[in-house]
Amino acid sequence: MERNQLIETVTREVLAILGTGGEVRLGLDHADEAVANGAARLGFCGDGCDVPTSLAQYIDHTVLKPDVPPEKIDTLCDEAVQYNFAAVCINPVWVQRAARRLRGSRVKVASVVGFPLGANVPEIKAMEARRAIRDGAREIDMVMNVGALKGGDHELVQRDIAGVSDACREVGALNKVIIEACYLTDEEKVVACRLAQLAHADFVKTSTGFGPGGATVFDVALMRETVGLKMGVKAAGGIHDASDARAMISAGANRIGASAGIRIVSGDEGGSGESY
Amino acid sequence: MERNQLIETVTREVLAILGTGGEVRLGLDHADEAVANGAARLGFCGDGCDVPTSLAQYIDHTVLKPDVPPEKIDTLCDEAVQYNFAAVCINPVWVQRAARRLRGSRVKVASVVGFPLGANVPEIKAMEARRAIRDGAREIDMVMNVGALKGGDHELVQRDIAGVSDACREVGALNKVIIEACYLTDEEKVVACRLAQLAHADFVKTSTGFGPGGATVFDVALMRETVGLKMGVKAAGGIHDASDARAMISAGANRIGASAGIRIVSGDEGGSGESY
Repeated sequence: MERNQLIETVTREVLAILGTGGEVRLGLDHADEAVANGAARLGFCGDGCDVPTSLAQYIDHTVLKPDVPPEKIDTLCDEAVQYNFAAVCINPVWVQRAARRLRGSRVKVASVVGFPLGANVPEIKAMEARRAIRDGAREIDMVMNVGALKGGDHELVQRDIAGVSDACREVGALNKVIIEACYLTDEEKVVACRLAQLAHADFVKTSTGFGPGGATVFDVALMRETVGLKMGVKAAGGIHDASDARAMISAGANRIGASAGIRIVSGDEGGSGESY
Repeated sequence: MERNQLIETVTREVLAILGTGGEVRLGLDHADEAVANGAARLGFCGDGCDVPTSLAQYIDHTVLKPDVPPEKIDTLCDEAVQYNFAAVCINPVWVQRAARRLRGSRVKVASVVGFPLGANVPEIKAMEARRAIRDGAREIDMVMNVGALKGGDHELVQRDIAGVSDACREVGALNKVIIEACYLTDEEKVVACRLAQLAHADFVKTSTGFGPGGATVFDVALMRETVGLKMGVKAAGGIHDASDARAMISAGANRIGASAGIRIVSGDEGGSGESY
């Protein structure tokens, strides 16, 4: 497989760059081990990635546009409960409101950190994560420092992620690292995933939805094969309907970020839809 | 004048909503007073807004794209010194690097806060500003909480701005409030400017450059007529050449945010140019 070869080659280079030797795990052949290592906690289907009938538990019901008034956040929360989505994904200023609205439900609050540019200093990202957690968030979707990665400063990228991972670990929250794949070469995508792994993140995520490109099947497969089954892979950006979502899940995604969650679980195809 | 009528009507409504009575100042007829009140500090031309021959001192030389490696920040700083721009405007993670590079020059470091969505909690925005200032920033371009404004929560909008104004005032830094006009009605633009004024900001700014629209001559004129001459008005987003810049300055802008600063001062027109 061409993709496998790419990952193998790049991973070897990356491990050499990072100076961390050790075994290189590739592909989707670690299901047993993954289950033993808590893949269930990440919601990953351990059955060779058959796409389940109901997609609801894959969906982070998302509104991140800046001009959304608070009432829309209430609606988002109510819909997430009604459709049994995994989480709502919202901007930090609305976390307290959403957590109050969702009290007693199984729907988690996910908030964003360093979003969508990722170009904040690590200490501010960590504080932003702690504050969101204090306000009720139990999942953090942080944006990696893309410029530092492009400039080869892997230490900064890893430290940046680790600060948020630490904040999350204190309360058992999940840290999802957005690598903003549209800006990266394939090699850089693999490096980004490895750095997220080394920094004890729980998920890698394709896109913010605010960059020039969203999730692709290729990127999801590359990311899944890079991280194996010990981490989650979230596909986000431009996922408009059930067909898009199923393609991402088949490629290895175990979480879908979308503003079109209701259309996705209703099985409607196409249409203009809300923007992410 | 239709625009004057709009501002007068809206301002009266806004002051009623905000419950702050007092005199309503309109138009560009306060030059003397403005000079007495420190307009010079804001770089505003007190001569009825004739556009000066050299535009360099109007320019915030800007790179905010997330995939820019650190070397590009060095180049930006060197260009700002060479062309005598007012400031470089960069993401927080590069402030320390830029401040070091610009030591001994007259070029200021401007950094962004809550950028570009503005949907952070006020305490994190204030911390982000303090950290940028500690790292060497002397101007802060913060994004207003657009969603709170759309939802009518003026108290939150004002408190959010005031937290950053306080951080800035401690060291004499400038607080520029981005209202992200593309999302606002004309009435909301005036409300936003009034709230920025009440929260002791130094500038209002049209746009982040990341939203669906950038600076327009209409918005700049509306903002200038709303705030009078005691505040600065920065036009940003989609300003590609000298002709664009001169139109904004004629309309009342006293600062221009652009990645095309070199083209602007070189007088070249049109062309594709760098994106903002």
